[in-house]
This record gives sequence, C-alpha cells and structure tokens, in this order.
Amino acid sequence: MEKLKKYALLKDEDQFYHEGAVELLVFNFLLILTILTIWLFKNHRFRFLHETGGAMVYGLVMGLIIRYATKTSDVENGTVYECEKLKSGPSSLLINITNQVYEYQYKREINRHNVNGHQGNAMLQKMTFDPSIFFSILLPPIIFHAGYSLKKRHFFRNLGSILTYAFLGTAISCIVIGLIMYGFVKAMVHIGQLKEWEFHFTDCLFFGSLMSATDPVTVLAIFNELHVDTDLYTLLFGESVLNDAVAIVLTYSISIYSPKENPNAFDAAAFFQSVGNFLGIFAGSFAMGSSYAVVTALLTKFTKLCEFPMLETGLFFLLSWSAFLSAEAAGLTGIVAVLFCGVTQAHYTYNNLSSDSKMRTKQLFEFMNFLAENVIFCYMGLALFTFQNHIFSPLFIFGAFLAVFVARACNIYPLTFLLNFGRKQKIPRNFQHMMMFSGLRGAIAFALAIQDTESQSKQMMFTTALLIVFFTVWVFGGGTTPMLTWLQIRVGVDPDEDVQTRYSNSSASNLDKNTTKAESAWLFRVWYVFDHRYLKPILTHAGPPLTTTLPGWCNPIARLLTSPSAYGDQLKNEDTDYIINNDELTKNYEASAQTPVPPQDRTGCSQATAKEDFCEGDLGLGEYKLQLEHTPGQTQLNLSTRTV
Amino acid sequence: MEKLKKYALLKDEDQFYHEGAVELLVFNFLLILTILTIWLFKNHRFRFLHETGGAMVYGLVMGLIIRYATKTSDVENGTVYECEKLKSGPSSLLINITNQVYEYQYKREINRHNVNGHQGNAMLQKMTFDPSIFFSILLPPIIFHAGYSLKKRHFFRNLGSILTYAFLGTAISCIVIGLIMYGFVKAMVHIGQLKEWEFHFTDCLFFGSLMSATDPVTVLAIFNELHVDTDLYTLLFGESVLNDAVAIVLTYSISIYSPKENPNAFDAAAFFQSVGNFLGIFAGSFAMGSSYAVVTALLTKFTKLCEFPMLETGLFFLLSWSAFLSAEAAGLTGIVAVLFCGVTQAHYTYNNLSSDSKMRTKQLFEFMNFLAENVIFCYMGLALFTFQNHIFSPLFIFGAFLAVFVARACNIYPLTFLLNFGRKQKIPRNFQHMMMFSGLRGAIAFALAIQDTESQSKQMMFTTALLIVFFTVWVFGGGTTPMLTWLQIRVGVDPDEDVQTRYSNSSASNLDKNTTKAESAWLFRVWYVFDHRYLKPILTHAGPPLTTTLPGWCNPIARLLTSPSAYGDQLKNEDTDYIINNDELTKNYEASAQTPVPPQDRTGCSQATAKEDFCEGDLGLGEYKLQLEHTPGQTQLNLSTRTV
Repeated sequence: MEKLKKYALLKDEDQFYHEGAVELLVFNFLLILTILTIWLFKNHRFRFLHETGGAMVYGLVMGLIIRYATKTSDVENGTVYECEKLKSGPSSLLINITNQVYEYQYKREINRHNVNGHQGNAMLQKMTFDPSIFFSILLPPIIFHAGYSLKKRHFFRNLGSILTYAFLGTAISCIVIGLIMYGFVKAMVHIGQLKEWEFHFTDCLFFGSLMSATDPVTVLAIFNELHVDTDLYTLLFGESVLNDAVAIVLTYSISIYSPKENPNAFDAAAFFQSVGNFLGIFAGSFAMGSSYAVVTALLTKFTKLCEFPMLETGLFFLLSWSAFLSAEAAGLTGIVAVLFCGVTQAHYTYNNLSSDSKMRTKQLFEFMNFLAENVIFCYMGLALFTFQNHIFSPLFIFGAFLAVFVARACNIYPLTFLLNFGRKQKIPRNFQHMMMFSGLRGAIAFALAIQDTESQSKQMMFTTALLIVFFTVWVFGGGTTPMLTWLQIRVGVDPDEDVQTRYSNSSASNLDKNTTKAESAWLFRVWYVFDHRYLKPILTHAGPPLTTTLPGWCNPIARLLTSPSAYGDQLKNEDTDYIINNDELTKNYEASAQTPVPPQDRTGCSQATAKEDFCEGDLGLGEYKLQLEHTPGQTQLNLSTRTV
Repeated sequence: MEKLKKYALLKDEDQFYHEGAVELLVFNFLLILTILTIWLFKNHRFRFLHETGGAMVYGLVMGLIIRYATKTSDVENGTVYECEKLKSGPSSLLINITNQVYEYQYKREINRHNVNGHQGNAMLQKMTFDPSIFFSILLPPIIFHAGYSLKKRHFFRNLGSILTYAFLGTAISCIVIGLIMYGFVKAMVHIGQLKEWEFHFTDCLFFGSLMSATDPVTVLAIFNELHVDTDLYTLLFGESVLNDAVAIVLTYSISIYSPKENPNAFDAAAFFQSVGNFLGIFAGSFAMGSSYAVVTALLTKFTKLCEFPMLETGLFFLLSWSAFLSAEAAGLTGIVAVLFCGVTQAHYTYNNLSSDSKMRTKQLFEFMNFLAENVIFCYMGLALFTFQNHIFSPLFIFGAFLAVFVARACNIYPLTFLLNFGRKQKIPRNFQHMMMFSGLRGAIAFALAIQDTESQSKQMMFTTALLIVFFTVWVFGGGTTPMLTWLQIRVGVDPDEDVQTRYSNSSASNLDKNTTKAESAWLFRVWYVFDHRYLKPILTHAGPPLTTTLPGWCNPIARLLTSPSAYGDQLKNEDTDYIINNDELTKNYEASAQTPVPPQDRTGCSQATAKEDFCEGDLGLGEYKLQLEHTPGQTQLNLSTRTV
C-alpha cells in the first residue's frame, strides 16, 4: 500500500518533469527547423530572411498551433484561494492538501484583472516562460559577445560619433517617442478608448526608452556577408551595442521615477533623482564590469594559467559571469556590467590568454550568442499567440510606428549634421539613410517590454513593441540588400585593404591625416596615451616597460608590474591591441568569409604568439604610437611586414 | 500612492531576484577559488588533489560558513497552511493574501517529518538546489562528453571486457552491496536502531545499485597526465562510462519494483517486470540516442551544412540535446540516451563535420564537462552542511564502506579471472589491483542519491553515499600516484608508439595476432564488417562505395546513398574513423599533452581534411580492414606514411 502510494508519487513528479522536457523539445525542434531553413536560403543566396527572422516565423506558426490546436485541460486554473492566516507572501509555502503537505514556490504577484485572463490551457502556460530568464540567462551571452567582438580597429576611429549616437541619440529617441505617444494617448482618452489614469506621461517615456534600443542583427549579418563599408558597419554596430546599455538603464530609471504628488506634473526633485539614478547605475555597472575584467587580466598575466587552457577559459568565463551577478546583487544593471566587462576583456585579458583559450572563448561566446539570439527571436514569434493578455489598440500601434520612425529620423539626421562639422571624413548622405533604415528593434526592446506586463498600459506597450519588432525585422531586415543597391553603398570592401588605401593616402599627406585624427577624437587620444603608457603595460604583456613611462621614484613597482616580455618584444606586441578581427561577428555563417585559425604553439602562452596577432593588427592606430614615441623608423618596418 | 505601491512591488521582486544572484555568485567564487588552487597545485606538480577534490573542499568550507555563520531569518518557514477547498496539488496556485493575489508554483510533495527539520535559515534553503537540476542540466553534458570522447582505438579492442565489467560487474556489485547492507540493516533492527518497516530488501538493493556507479574522474585525469598504459586506461574509462548508464537504469527499475504483498517476499511477477523494465528502458534509451545521432549524421552528410560551421554546430548541439529530451519525454532515461548519442555522433557524424565544427563541438562539450563536473563536486561539499535532513548512522555507514569494497572486489577479480581465459593479452595482476583501487564514487552516485530524500531510509542512504564519495575521491583519488608506483604500472607510454610496437610485433607473427583478435572480440568483428560495409558508407563520406558492398539489385539506392568522395578517397578516408585523440579527455589541463590544432581549410568541409585526421588514425583496426579486403598492399602504404 505504502509502495503503491510511492509509485503514484513518483509518477506524479515524473509528469511535471516530462512536461518540461516536452516544452524544451518543442523549442529545440523550432530551432532545428530554423537552422535547416536558413541553410536552404543561404545555399541559394537568398538574403531576404535572416535566421532570426526565420526563427520568428516558426515561432509564430508554433504559437498558432499551440493556441488553437491544443485543448484546455487544467481546470484548477483561474481559481483564487483564500488564506487568511498569511500576512505577506513568503518565498516558499507549505500547504496541506488532503492530508499531504506540498511545497509551493513564490512566482509573482498578479493583478486581479489578469487572473481571469488565463484561459486554462496548460500547454499555453508552460510555453510562456519567466521574463526574468531573458535578463538573467539569454541576454548576458549576447551582450557579452557584442562587447567581446567590438570591432576595435574602426571602433576607436569613430568613438566620438558612436558615443554621440548612443547617448544623445537614445535620449532624443526616448523623448521624441514619449512626446508623440503622449499626444496619441491624449487623443485616445479624448475619444474614450482609454481612461485618463491608465497612461501617464512617464508611461509614455517608459515606452520611449524601451523602444529606443536598436538591434540591427539582421542588417549587420548582411553587411558582413557583403563586406559593406567598414565605417558604416562600425557606426551601426557600435551604436546598437552601446545604446542597448543606455536604453536599459534609462528604462529602469524611468520606471522608478516617482513624483510625490500628481504623476503628470513635473517634479524637479524626482526628476533629478532619476537623472542621478541613471548616472549612478550606469557608472556603477561600468565600474563593476570593467573591474572584473581587470581582475581577470591581472590573474591571467601574473599566473602561468595559460599553461592550462581549460582552467584559463574556466576562470575567464566564471569571472565574466560574476561581473553580471555582482552587478545584479548590488542593485546595478548586470547587462551593462557584462557589456563593459566584455569590452575590457577583449582589450586587455585577451592578449594574455593562450592561443587555445583565445579560440575557445571566442567560439564559446559566439555559439552562446547564436543560440540565445535564436531562442529569443523564436520566443517572440511564439509570444504573439501564447501570451495571454495582449491588448491590440490600433491607434496606439499606429502612433507607435509613427513615433519610432520620427524618433529615428530625429536621432540620425540632426546628430550626423552636427557630427559632420567635427569629422574630416564626413558621414555621407547615403550612409545616413542606411542608418535611418537600420533602426530595427529586437531582443532588448522585447525583453524590456515583457519584464512587466501586469497593468493594462504595460500590456498595450508589450503588444505594440512585439508588432514593431516583427515589422522591422521582416521588412527592414529583408529589405537591406535592395536598400544597399538603391543607396549605392560600396560592397565587397576588404577591410584591410580599406585601411591600407587610407594609410598610403595619409603617408603622402601625413600632416593632414594627423589633424583629422586630432579633430575627430582628441578625447580618445588622451585616453590612448594613458592606456598605452600605463594600463596596457600593467594589465598585459605588451606595451612599453613601465620603467620608461612612470616617473623614476615608481621604479620598484614599475619593475614588479612590467612583464619581462615587454622589454624585448616591444615592437612585436604593439599590434596585439586589435585582436578581434572584423569578420568575427558572423564569420561563421559565411562560407566566403572565413578567417584562418592560427596554428597553436607548444608553449601555449600568448607571449610567444605575438606574430600570429600581427596580421590582425591595426595600422590606423599604429600611427599614434609612432607619433607619440617619435620613432618614425618603426612605421616602415610595420608597413613592410604587412604588405609582404 | 499607486506609484509607491508599484515601487514597493518592484523592490520586492528585486529582492527575490538578487538573492538568486547572490547564490550563484557564491558558487562562482567557489569555482574560481578551486581553479586558482588547482593551478597552484599543478604548477608545483602536486598531484594529490584533483580539481574535483578541490571543489569539494571549498564547497565543504562554504557549507560550514553558511550553516553556522548565517542567521535564521525566514520565520514563515515550517508553518503548514490549510487549504480545505483544494483536492489535489495543482501545478500553479493563486492565493489571496491581504487582498493581493500571488502566484505560487508547485515544487514538491514533502513528508510531514521533514517539515520540522527545516531550520528556517533562508540562505541555507537557497543554496540547496532542486535535485532534478542534476539530471536535466549538469549530468547530460558530462555524459555526452564521455560518450563523445570514448577512446575508440583501444575501446573496441577491449569491448568484450568493458561490456562484461559494465553489465555483469554492475549487477554483481549491486547484489553484493544489497546483501551486505541487508545484513547490517537486520543487525540494526535487532539492536533497535532501526524499525523493521523502514528498510526493506529492495531499499538495500536500491542503495546497491546507486553505489555501483563508479566515477574515477580523478584517477583518469592522473592516468592521462602520466600517460599510463592505454589498455588500463581504456578498461577503466569504458567501464565507468557504461556502468553509469547501467546503474541509472538499474536504480530506476528497482525503485519501481513493487511486489503485490509482503515487500520483503520475493514476487516473481514483479521481479520479471523489473527485469523487463530494465531491458526495455535500456534498449529504448539506446535506440532513442543513436537514432538522433543517425539523423544528425544523415543531415550533415546530405546537406552542405558544413559550409556554415555555426549552423552545423547548432544543429549538432540541438539534435544531441533533443535525444535527451525525447527520451525523458517518452519515459526513458535521458542520460543513457545522451551517452549513446554521443558515442554514435563521434563514430559517424564527426566525420561529416567541417574542421571548424569538429573543433568547436569538441571544445564546447569539453568546457561544459569541466564546468558541470566542478559544480557537482562543489555542490557535494556544500551538501554535507547545507542539506537539512542528514541521518548519520555509524553502523550503516560502516556497513556501506565494507560493502562497497567487497562488492568492488567481487566485481573485478572473478570477472577478470574469467575474462583472462578469453583474452590472449591477459589483464595482469597489478592492473586488477589498480582497477580495484579505482572504484571511486562520484557524480552519478550522488545525483541518484539526492533524487529522493523524502523518507528516512533515503536520507540515511544519501548521507552515507556522500561520505563514501568524499572518502573515495580524496583518499583513493589522492593515492593514485603512489599506488601506480607501488604496483609498478608502466607510465609515460606514448599511445601511438604503443600501438606501433604491437603492430611491428604482430607483423612478424601476423597469424598469431589475428587469432588473438578473433578470440577476444568475434562479436565485434561481425559488427565491424557490418559497420564498415554498410553503416559507414551510408552515414558518412568514408568507406567503400555501397555499390560494391550491396547486392546488385540495390544499385540505384546504393548510388544515391554513397558519397561521391567514397569512390576516390577510399584509402585516405579509411582513417577518419578514429578521430577522438586519446589525450582529449584532459589534454587541456596539462601543459605537457597539447595536441596541435589543425589549420583550417578554406572550404571548411571535412572531405578535404582527411589528411589532418590521418595522424590521429588507428592502426589497430586498420588491420581488420586490410584483412577483410585482401589488399595487403595498403598496409605498407599506411604504415610508411605514419612512421615518416
């Protein structure tokens, strides 16, 4: 008898477990289908559907099937039970049901009006997974990979413009969308479609901030495949990576903006508190992310961990993940921390890694990025049908589409106009149109919107955001190739050749070139000197010995911190700065754009592999170094090695 | 007001979320510490503590801290609430608490006597994670990696012995442990330490089956580092991989064995049902796992997916994972499915992959294996102090230690004695002692024990299993190097040289050698012919064209299925069978055992990379092929290429 009961219990637990397996299996099959379809498309050089778009289509179809072809089964759902003894919701709850104790775990607070919304379809409920999974599991690898593969060569050349688009542009976009949506909301209240108290101006700004995160993954993949102009690529990629961070912190700051009295009135104190929150969280997350990367760099530099690549990779992975977790635990934004952690890891730690770990970390994060991206886009497709509380408001949706495009225009054109004053090498008209066109919305906007879908205003925003993502990914993503042709943007550019052409031009008019640099990125130059003289030598094996750059009285510390290889290999290691090759982002999806994997050396340590990085080095920035150190003889040496 | 409430809600949710981050952070730090410590040890050639042992030590220390240095905080715990309206436990529960609806999710059924055991320490509870995580997240990559890196060269040479140890040996071990434990239980009942109905004979057998899963990860790592005799390595590794599968299915079969009447009496019907369950589940899981691998092989062979390595790797990963999920969803054993999936993937699919994917898949699973293994061992350390319901019963623990060693002896010595009748190349005495000594218990035993800790008997088993794992990993794992010296086992063996020596011996006495093979593995020879003539040509690009091996009337199908490269490259592709290099398992932890990474080719497809695999090829089995096809000319060609 006891046995039989145990058996029943076992069966019961199995039931729960197996359902989890079935859900995951459905996802797996969707992804497998996506991969096969995309292969077919790629094989036939059909570029109108990127894998993310494909994942969305399959998700949509599966959502449709689950919604309308599965039966409602779980009759218990939708019933609210009373428990008078409880005064607050504990994290875990023990309940006595028919003389058996069951443990329940806290999931979330739920609004009363959403309770009835549940249609009691168990499968439907199972397929809608916890929004926090996006922020804690799916996004971190994507964002880390973006930071880890920032195209540094051209990135620094366009740093000023990228920062302007990312910070000022996102703020403009947020405000413009907020204002337009506020107008539409007012109109909707006027015609009675909405109640006054349901939608405040802060809600509109909230929507504006979450819709400001651009995600041109489809466009960038095609750029990479067609070898579109590298500056355009860098501008777009850099903007989209940094603007994610800005949009996330902005959304959070707006969500905790709480004016004391009338929520529509302007409250200066609360406003400045929000601004303070924004700056504090952004700076804190930045500091958290980069300090973990600095720790990794120091550990990989001063231990001989590179002799054991697996331990090294493990340490790298765990410390990068810890950056995310620490930021979250400290109340900061993990995603932002992990982004800057990625950037710093690529800039310093990467140089210290053994060649095996270099490859392994790159491939690992590339793969995680690939999977996570496809899961998110697949889930977006699913969500259109499986999410239970959609609110389709035609006027709001129309307003949002309008606002998004107007805001993108207000971001790109005026800012580019201003930037072109400072840039010697102007951003041409057709680039501007292409950037305007590439304002796709994707994973971040979706993740921000799904985070909170309790109130009706949030549900309306979620539905609208989802539709905008669908539209931009399919229409704009699919239209990239025709658009490139129409705008007559140069394709088939070899990035190295590109730099070399520029370089040979500039060697003719060297003075002129240097002025350009000074104009466009003087801030960067200050940073570069500091980085090159102090940070690089401290954190990596490269750079000039600290004994030559630090003042004399620091000599004991300088000698301690300088890597032995810095004295000898100074010239060779000069080039290890720019390790992320420009084909990295999607090189693995292309047959045509494969970079050769460097042969592994027996010692396994990076000090000995300066040569391998050499071919990936940068010329654009090499100049600076030469200029700063007044050793023009090195220029020719570097150049000759490269052209040979 | 509404805002403020929302803010409070947000804070509340954050609270929950941040606690999750803190737990993970603690784990991360433990793993980081482990990695750094192990590096120190490795750096000083100190081989007494493997990383898994180190992870356990740190876990133990952290468990101690959490247990005694954190305060009890969550006062709500331990209170059982009544809910009369509910008749069964639904998967999610809506509860009205102070006029707010909260959603709770089903976690588990809990025994009344365990409710009071909770000490109300929230941190303690948080650090004890769901047992199902072991089986659904941590074990699959470990087991897949084991299957994917089975040392095929020597594996097949010792197939008969390995299967004997894995199946017969595990059964013997299970029964011996069960019988000895039953004796001890009877004694405990006699002296009043235990009540009669708490511990049946089936419980003892259950304990026996879960303690039969050996996991000599520490020993194997040292074997690899010291290049211990390859046959010994293969015997141990093969046994431990396959015996995990056997032990898991055996444990499950015993747990659902339910005699109708007296649980101590023998019920023939129920017994045969259990045997049937065992065979059915094992065969089903095997079929499920290998069919997914076959699908992967066919997909990678007949599509040109190898041109897009990322898609290929993605497909490989998703299909392998689907094997696990499908088996779980079908009520079979996912772990067993994933093991055989790994073996089949390595045997067929691997040959079709592009060189990029070959490297990526190997590195990916290697890394996942590394992380998962360390997490499990770290968690074991933690569990000693954080698990709330330990039952330390000295007599039971003593009995278990005795039983485990006696059972290991009854497994190894008699079976080896029998096997040596059939083996030309006997397993010597010192190998037998070493195998006896390497009966470590690890991840699988722990995962099987923690799966169900509801009843007091299960808690007693869990505590005992944990102690046996600690003891064997630390004492036997640490004693491996001295033991090798004491038993005078050959170290520093180059596996290729090893084979070549054998080969040159055998070429002198070729007939003699062939007889050996026929004696020791005639079953394998039948399989090899079938595999080489039909399966290999169908599933990979290698092997003789099907048009030559299939009967004439199959020609149309044969032509369709045979890869074009099979006609020409027959000779070269001969060697792609044995691709997993013998240093794979832990090569990345060693400075001394690095294999060079093959340079990537532009086409990205494996057909063009036969040469690279060539150096990793097999000689031991090359013979078979030659023998079967009667083309002795090829022998010399192969051999000369290799010795050059």
